[in-house]
Amino acid sequence: MTPLSSYFLLLVIMVFNSFSSQAQERPRELGIKIGVLPSGEQNSITDVSGVSVGQLTKIQGDQIRTGVTAILPHQSNLFQNKVPAAVYVGNGFGKLAGSTQIEELGNIESPIILTNTLSVAAGIEGIVKYTLAESGNESVQSVNAVVGETNDGYLNDIRGMHVSAEDVKQAILSAKSEIVEEGNVGAGTGTVCFGFKGGIGTSSRKLPDNLGGFTVGVLVQTNFGGVLQFNGVPLGEELNQYTFRNQLESADGSCMIIVATDAPVNERNLKRMAERAMLGLARTGGIASNGSGDYVIAFSNYQGNLIPHQSKPYEKQAVHMLANDDMTSLFLATIEATEEAIINSLWAATDMKGKDGRLIKALPKDKTMEILRKYNRLP
Amino acid sequence: MTPLSSYFLLLVIMVFNSFSSQAQERPRELGIKIGVLPSGEQNSITDVSGVSVGQLTKIQGDQIRTGVTAILPHQSNLFQNKVPAAVYVGNGFGKLAGSTQIEELGNIESPIILTNTLSVAAGIEGIVKYTLAESGNESVQSVNAVVGETNDGYLNDIRGMHVSAEDVKQAILSAKSEIVEEGNVGAGTGTVCFGFKGGIGTSSRKLPDNLGGFTVGVLVQTNFGGVLQFNGVPLGEELNQYTFRNQLESADGSCMIIVATDAPVNERNLKRMAERAMLGLARTGGIASNGSGDYVIAFSNYQGNLIPHQSKPYEKQAVHMLANDDMTSLFLATIEATEEAIINSLWAATDMKGKDGRLIKALPKDKTMEILRKYNRLP
Amino acid sequence: MTPLSSYFLLLVIMVFNSFSSQAQERPRELGIKIGVLPSGEQNSITDVSGVSVGQLTKIQGDQIRTGVTAILPHQSNLFQNKVPAAVYVGNGFGKLAGSTQIEELGNIESPIILTNTLSVAAGIEGIVKYTLAESGNESVQSVNAVVGETNDGYLNDIRGMHVSAEDVKQAILSAKSEIVEEGNVGAGTGTVCFGFKGGIGTSSRKLPDNLGGFTVGVLVQTNFGGVLQFNGVPLGEELNQYTFRNQLESADGSCMIIVATDAPVNERNLKRMAERAMLGLARTGGIASNGSGDYVIAFSNYQGNLIPHQSKPYEKQAVHMLANDDMTSLFLATIEATEEAIINSLWAATDMKGKDGRLIKALPKDKTMEILRKYNRLP
Amino acid sequence: MTPLSSYFLLLVIMVFNSFSSQAQERPRELGIKIGVLPSGEQNSITDVSGVSVGQLTKIQGDQIRTGVTAILPHQSNLFQNKVPAAVYVGNGFGKLAGSTQIEELGNIESPIILTNTLSVAAGIEGIVKYTLAESGNESVQSVNAVVGETNDGYLNDIRGMHVSAEDVKQAILSAKSEIVEEGNVGAGTGTVCFGFKGGIGTSSRKLPDNLGGFTVGVLVQTNFGGVLQFNGVPLGEELNQYTFRNQLESADGSCMIIVATDAPVNERNLKRMAERAMLGLARTGGIASNGSGDYVIAFSNYQGNLIPHQSKPYEKQAVHMLANDDMTSLFLATIEATEEAIINSLWAATDMKGKDGRLIKALPKDKTMEILRKYNRLP
Repeated sequence: MTPLSSYFLLLVIMVFNSFSSQAQERPRELGIKIGVLPSGEQNSITDVSGVSVGQLTKIQGDQIRTGVTAILPHQSNLFQNKVPAAVYVGNGFGKLAGSTQIEELGNIESPIILTNTLSVAAGIEGIVKYTLAESGNESVQSVNAVVGETNDGYLNDIRGMHVSAEDVKQAILSAKSEIVEEGNVGAGTGTVCFGFKGGIGTSSRKLPDNLGGFTVGVLVQTNFGGVLQFNGVPLGEELNQYTFRNQLESADGSCMIIVATDAPVNERNLKRMAERAMLGLARTGGIASNGSGDYVIAFSNYQGNLIPHQSKPYEKQAVHMLANDDMTSLFLATIEATEEAIINSLWAATDMKGKDGRLIKALPKDKTMEILRKYNRLP
Repeated sequence: MTPLSSYFLLLVIMVFNSFSSQAQERPRELGIKIGVLPSGEQNSITDVSGVSVGQLTKIQGDQIRTGVTAILPHQSNLFQNKVPAAVYVGNGFGKLAGSTQIEELGNIESPIILTNTLSVAAGIEGIVKYTLAESGNESVQSVNAVVGETNDGYLNDIRGMHVSAEDVKQAILSAKSEIVEEGNVGAGTGTVCFGFKGGIGTSSRKLPDNLGGFTVGVLVQTNFGGVLQFNGVPLGEELNQYTFRNQLESADGSCMIIVATDAPVNERNLKRMAERAMLGLARTGGIASNGSGDYVIAFSNYQGNLIPHQSKPYEKQAVHMLANDDMTSLFLATIEATEEAIINSLWAATDMKGKDGRLIKALPKDKTMEILRKYNRLP
Repeated sequence: MTPLSSYFLLLVIMVFNSFSSQAQERPRELGIKIGVLPSGEQNSITDVSGVSVGQLTKIQGDQIRTGVTAILPHQSNLFQNKVPAAVYVGNGFGKLAGSTQIEELGNIESPIILTNTLSVAAGIEGIVKYTLAESGNESVQSVNAVVGETNDGYLNDIRGMHVSAEDVKQAILSAKSEIVEEGNVGAGTGTVCFGFKGGIGTSSRKLPDNLGGFTVGVLVQTNFGGVLQFNGVPLGEELNQYTFRNQLESADGSCMIIVATDAPVNERNLKRMAERAMLGLARTGGIASNGSGDYVIAFSNYQGNLIPHQSKPYEKQAVHMLANDDMTSLFLATIEATEEAIINSLWAATDMKGKDGRLIKALPKDKTMEILRKYNRLP
Repeated sequence: MTPLSSYFLLLVIMVFNSFSSQAQERPRELGIKIGVLPSGEQNSITDVSGVSVGQLTKIQGDQIRTGVTAILPHQSNLFQNKVPAAVYVGNGFGKLAGSTQIEELGNIESPIILTNTLSVAAGIEGIVKYTLAESGNESVQSVNAVVGETNDGYLNDIRGMHVSAEDVKQAILSAKSEIVEEGNVGAGTGTVCFGFKGGIGTSSRKLPDNLGGFTVGVLVQTNFGGVLQFNGVPLGEELNQYTFRNQLESADGSCMIIVATDAPVNERNLKRMAERAMLGLARTGGIASNGSGDYVIAFSNYQGNLIPHQSKPYEKQAVHMLANDDMTSLFLATIEATEEAIINSLWAATDMKGKDGRLIKALPKDKTMEILRKYNRLP
């Protein structure tokens, strides 16, 4: 294939991609109701007020299928107004940057970047340069960049390290508090999930007032395997594609999960929420295989609890907290939103041809609907 | 009620209990096939060669519904021949004894005892006395007793602390490597799960030779809640009984999970297996609610890796280990066996009347079969 | 020896013990100034307002040399008003009860009990019975008993399990907010430290107002080894008694460390303070040997941050917190108070004859003063 | 100053630096004997056979004072032959890359890079490019780069991010198994410790045969504070320079500690060794202040336990391990070598003028010797 024709291929793919993500209904709109709690308005991490997401998709030539997804916990200077946060390591075969400082200090002070495994350095460099350049940060000399990754090396020329620090800054700067594009975009451009095309997915839960009224939003970058269970239905078995069954499903891969909430909860309870996200992953048939880097990052952007970078020495600061007893509804919300975000990523993703001519097919939607019907899981 | 009549009630319950557990088929025998891997011969933790289980059930009068379950990793002196082991804390609202030493030294040196929350002291005392008295332990001055618990205080007069150290010793001494009685027995006598009667359950997976050929066995003490999912079927919703739906299902409670294997894996990989057990719990609809003490204890009794209490100073000891890459099949086995053990505990449990006249009904089996049929999950 | 004469021996020992602890000056009073921060008024954990300590010493016949030390974080019902707390495991060869719930929920809801290794069950039972019986706790069905231990089996017939639940209750009920008796008392009755008689020790630091003005108090049960360094002076080497040098110093053993503060800090920062206590232990020459169970329990009893057992669902509760940046002075205070508490325990302890006629000598004080003078560390 | 004159300044500094590090005796050679165990032949991390160290020092103009230190666990392909390893986070205010995978998989598969805080991205990129380019790694798509850092922003224009991936590769390629240059070199070029010039330091312990005969080597990058204690002598107080005393000593900063051994110990026992390194830091007066990123990375390069990247599926691999009981001598060796490595870093460092004309003075050696004499700590 000549360079010219590969350029045309690129255009075609991008148009198709864009078209497909516009036109398609999400599972919930098709009557696939996951869990017992109501979703937020957009069924998106951006239902948590203040959260924004920016994505940069990098599809170039035949070999490059990667990108960047940036999640910003709130709209002001993150370094000067940190958010309580926690990390849970579901399976640590991954390169997450920033985890020990989050654990020690209980907060996040940067955008959260998702990208591919060998571009974590670009992610850190991009965050650092963005933060140093931000107004008000002129004397900043230390930035805890938070960068997660999954390995898109099946479809993407990952060894080429095609994500740049500039790409990362662009993803950050493009962040919007609107509905998040799902599927083959940003950090999900080249990922594979349960042997099908994975990608970015998102979902949310809005707790009823008698359960506190808070919102929990989840965003996932799906690149993992196991035995696909689709809202309880044994889809992997029906489609004869699951771990140890055949080579299409390698089990390995990874899943990055971001959990956002507006509930006033501290770093300890955020860690507990993060742990529950793995229970949501389990409900889709994920098994956290040896080779899977499964990480959950959780934060609360409850306005009154933001942590100023500098404060008057030894001045007690008032914060507000829910009791431990109030956490159960937030746990359930996290589990359900994670399960649905993963399903949404699979649903939105489309066929992707990439490195060395490899093709990963999207979840077969018609067939899936048929199987859901067989198991009486459609309205 | 006179003392005499309460005595008759006790007899009736015990007979019924005994009868039911004999006569009843287990879910797998009814065609309810959970997961994709084959079970072991007995579908029990005792499929792991050398593991034995002893149980003491304490049903006395109207108020006492509790007991003890003892798991012995192998049949020789455990203190003198420790097993590599790990603990994973799914949700630490519990009183597990022994966890920090397991974590530090990577082994277990005692039987594992399960009982009720306020009887952990009796569990420790029983283990210590058993160990001190064992032949060969005459100079032992330190014993790391491993005792897990769930709270059976809804049906049992837990404040009465009716389990004694002697009861614990009896449970240990009665341990057998046979099929394990499930349901309202031992530490599961008074437990409640998803608002139904819970109890003891067990299951196993025997990996095919091309996946290593090892066995993973799981035993659970189920006393937790959430939104019951029965082999993928939304049973909690169908029966209108789940967390936040109504008061029958309080979500809180706990689950103790014991994972045994004959695979040669060290304490780190045992901890990873333990973590996967929570993914199995998640598949049943468990949510690790705030009030749930969910713990997993995993050990390997691979003969060549037993750890002598004393060895020649600075002598290198040969052990054998699987590679990290080999763990995925053991992870899947753990997930599946845990899911099925929980389902088995619910299936085996029968109606239980206890403290203050409270009644907890067993899972309605006919209705459950009907719902499984509705969702096309029966053969 | 006849039973009668052994009874007289007991009396003699107790009188001597009592006399010695009254008459003797503490190191600070002798000009041995450890660290750069000022101590609190009593140089005791009870300098943290509200903290009380109760001790029960059990010296019976020739063989029994053990006891109980109880630390109460404040003077009201602890179960109904929990304190933020954390545990740090310096070396987990120990049987600490209660750690996982402290970690999960971030609080302590019981007195803290220290005793011997094989009496942890008695400690738990004592706490549970004390808590169940307390006014206001009539419906309590779950108590997270916190029990630490060290192994006094060299001097004490530890296999006899001579501490009872009733002893534990007595220690709790005897707690006072006065100066704490040090040396061969309570849980320190039979302990050995650096090959000398160890025991209970305490110290505190009162930060100057420009560093926040808070108080940090530490209590230790010393039963460990290493290469004794006494305020920087190589005392172990001078006395020719240290790990691997000779058999008098076995290195193994354990150290329980309790850190109390009135500073408004949450469970995460309490864990960081707990970690620093091990740095204080290191300064005395402690090495956290393989056989040493070294644990630190830290709590804050800042009045406004006590955690009610029950609160209105989903009501945000205001708490007050210092910033992370404010922690350094509290860290230094913890390190210094721990170092001095250990030295104080050695200084207060007196010769003890115990099991099988074994004798452990106290630190030779005259010789120690002479060595301190040689190294120019006395005023 | 003209560009030309700044170039001359650079030359002068480098020559001086080189001269000083050649000519100067190390503390041990001056009779300052730290600890009770013998050092290895070179008193260096390279006493552990197979370990090599490479350093790149970047002193350019007035503003740039930084560099890179690379530690290679052995001399063959590290990715194909991983080493058992562990990380201990003494205080997680730092940006260490690679920790979660080390924890999950128990090994290190790359060189270990130390550099400045804002150059972690360059460190990762350098390791990844080095690893991808290495012969035998042609199909590698995932590399867990291990990069530690401390903040040299007082003397170095850290915001300029002057370390490149190419610098990192150069440091790796220059690694030698010879004596390690200490002081103002590599990642220690611009660091400050106890308010004096810090830098790179190293030390080792060779256990006598009756304690196993193994070697433990430590390398540190010192950039932290506290109350300097020099082999037990209160040097910080004597020099009137310590935390909270005056502004010269800010307490904050960080310390990276690398522990290497040839003892056959697994990842769990390596983590325990790593924890002990913090006890060595404590003995120098380090307090792990809030702002200090104190991390320990420990590995064993015992030949028989190297972990092949790929192995035959489900084949048990024989490894050799010391018993837990054998660890105490390795713990003591780690503590002593860490203490001495820190002292060595201070001793070797020389005055450094850097960013904005700031000057950090070296430890005043004559005055220090005088004070050591006052406290009778010189032979």
